[in-house]
Amino acid sequence: MPDLSPPPTLDDIKAAAMRIAPFAHRTPLVESKMLNERVGGRLLLKCENLQCTGSFKFRGAYNRISQLSSEELARGIVASSSGNHAQGVAAAAGLCGAKATIVMPHDAPAIKVDNTRALGADIVVYNRDTDNRDEAAARVVDELGGVFVHPYEHPHIIAGQGTSALEVVQELQKTGDNLDAYLVCCSGGGLTAGSAIVMSELMPGADIYGVEPVDFDDTGRSLVAGKRMSNPATTGSICDALLVEIPGEFTYSINSRLLKGALSVSDDEVREAVAYAFRTLKLVVEPGGAVTLAACLAGKIDCKDKIIGMTLSGGNIDPALFSDIISTR
Amino acid sequence: MPDLSPPPTLDDIKAAAMRIAPFAHRTPLVESKMLNERVGGRLLLKCENLQCTGSFKFRGAYNRISQLSSEELARGIVASSSGNHAQGVAAAAGLCGAKATIVMPHDAPAIKVDNTRALGADIVVYNRDTDNRDEAAARVVDELGGVFVHPYEHPHIIAGQGTSALEVVQELQKTGDNLDAYLVCCSGGGLTAGSAIVMSELMPGADIYGVEPVDFDDTGRSLVAGKRMSNPATTGSICDALLVEIPGEFTYSINSRLLKGALSVSDDEVREAVAYAFRTLKLVVEPGGAVTLAACLAGKIDCKDKIIGMTLSGGNIDPALFSDIISTR
Repeated sequence: MPDLSPPPTLDDIKAAAMRIAPFAHRTPLVESKMLNERVGGRLLLKCENLQCTGSFKFRGAYNRISQLSSEELARGIVASSSGNHAQGVAAAAGLCGAKATIVMPHDAPAIKVDNTRALGADIVVYNRDTDNRDEAAARVVDELGGVFVHPYEHPHIIAGQGTSALEVVQELQKTGDNLDAYLVCCSGGGLTAGSAIVMSELMPGADIYGVEPVDFDDTGRSLVAGKRMSNPATTGSICDALLVEIPGEFTYSINSRLLKGALSVSDDEVREAVAYAFRTLKLVVEPGGAVTLAACLAGKIDCKDKIIGMTLSGGNIDPALFSDIISTR
Repeated sequence: MPDLSPPPTLDDIKAAAMRIAPFAHRTPLVESKMLNERVGGRLLLKCENLQCTGSFKFRGAYNRISQLSSEELARGIVASSSGNHAQGVAAAAGLCGAKATIVMPHDAPAIKVDNTRALGADIVVYNRDTDNRDEAAARVVDELGGVFVHPYEHPHIIAGQGTSALEVVQELQKTGDNLDAYLVCCSGGGLTAGSAIVMSELMPGADIYGVEPVDFDDTGRSLVAGKRMSNPATTGSICDALLVEIPGEFTYSINSRLLKGALSVSDDEVREAVAYAFRTLKLVVEPGGAVTLAACLAGKIDCKDKIIGMTLSGGNIDPALFSDIISTR
């Protein structure tokens, strides 16, 4: 499954930016003086929650699918996702005239299932507790003969996700500001790898960190161990977008080289960040998209007198959970 | 009370922009391809919900208060507001080293009261049903001897609010796009007047509309009648930020000259817009800040093949109301 071709280059990411430009949003880099005061430094928030389909995933999906041959597009696309990659693939496939079939876990947030269906995809549900995700996806590929679009193990996906960090750098070049650190919401590692390639070349003074939920800190433990480590569980955090089993082989080969380290945050710290984004920033951020902000609010990284960039990677959260979080803080 | 000096000029608004630049956010102009598809045109959303203190009001408050003399600042600031002007004044007074006392109605949203207090202001509550707002404010001014900062009837306030539209024009100049219409959330008329001065000079092809809640469409009825008309009630809409009694004399003298007309939306249409902003745009918008979006979603203005700019003027909404809205749509 993993594609161990060479990692995408900065030029590949610049080409991806050209490719997605007519269809993706150039998302704003938001700064809040109240947030800066609270942490004692400057935080720059790359709002991928405002991206098409509500997360950064559209970038990679479109960059990958738009480079398929017409023969491949005619076979249709198959993807496996709890929701954000699903929506990105469904939207990108629609733009490229391909049919998309998405394998989703039974406990995916309703808003993600509904939006994926609304974007024209067929949905196949598997039980996360009793069935294996990859096997479920393989069955669908066998049956339909479609092209499997992996959420992170492909250079075109990683290059597409990297366009987000490229836009951050372009904004900073206007003001001449340099980042001390760049934080990325990290699961399989595609956004992290793409961002790390950009930042390590164009913003070499910035330390790059993946941020993960506690107990799903596979990238963090892998970096310490020097080899890929898996998580003990596949459920048990509100960060539904970040529940990967183990870092990708391809993405980890990039991230192990370029990351300074990884940070982890508890569900409680994530809830506080989601509530803070509602109350003070006026942004809707899903739990998995708020881990970077949570790390700063919870003091997991020293922000004092620093300039720290970060992705808010998505905003697809069910109304019931959002209501629960904002009402109890 | 009204200051019938000449209206602010475009140069006054440009000077205000310089004055507020170090302290205000340059808010993003957001576009959503999904929203564009839904209305059949291009909608450009000026996100004043992301402004300092969660609404555009900081712009005018800082432009006004920063031009007071040190003697006036020493006397302190008094303002009357249901919440957004209150927070803007509290923040601006704090930056200028002045004490702020805010007269607020008993039914102001808790989030607005709490934030105003957190910004260091004293709060005096009056009963909106039994007491007159202006008289309550006059009593506080008499007692404290402070400078009254009216929410809209002053050229410095109007010039400050106009900086939001100036930023919109500056963004459009980068792309060469021209607006067919510009929609402004309208109550006393300060943001509307400031925006209209900018747009009528720099974007002369754009029709400028105020947007109001049904039953609080005083500006709309005034424009039709050719004179200032008051509203039958002062309570009864979820748009707490837009419950003015009658258009300002000063603001109306500007708006009656420059507005193409006014649109009005029901509470139900506003709730749908707040829910849409949550679900699809991933933005937290308060009811009074969502009337412009509501007008487009409800078909109150023809968006087909048009480019329409608008303010989302604030995002200060209580969690309980927000939860109620997003859970029932």
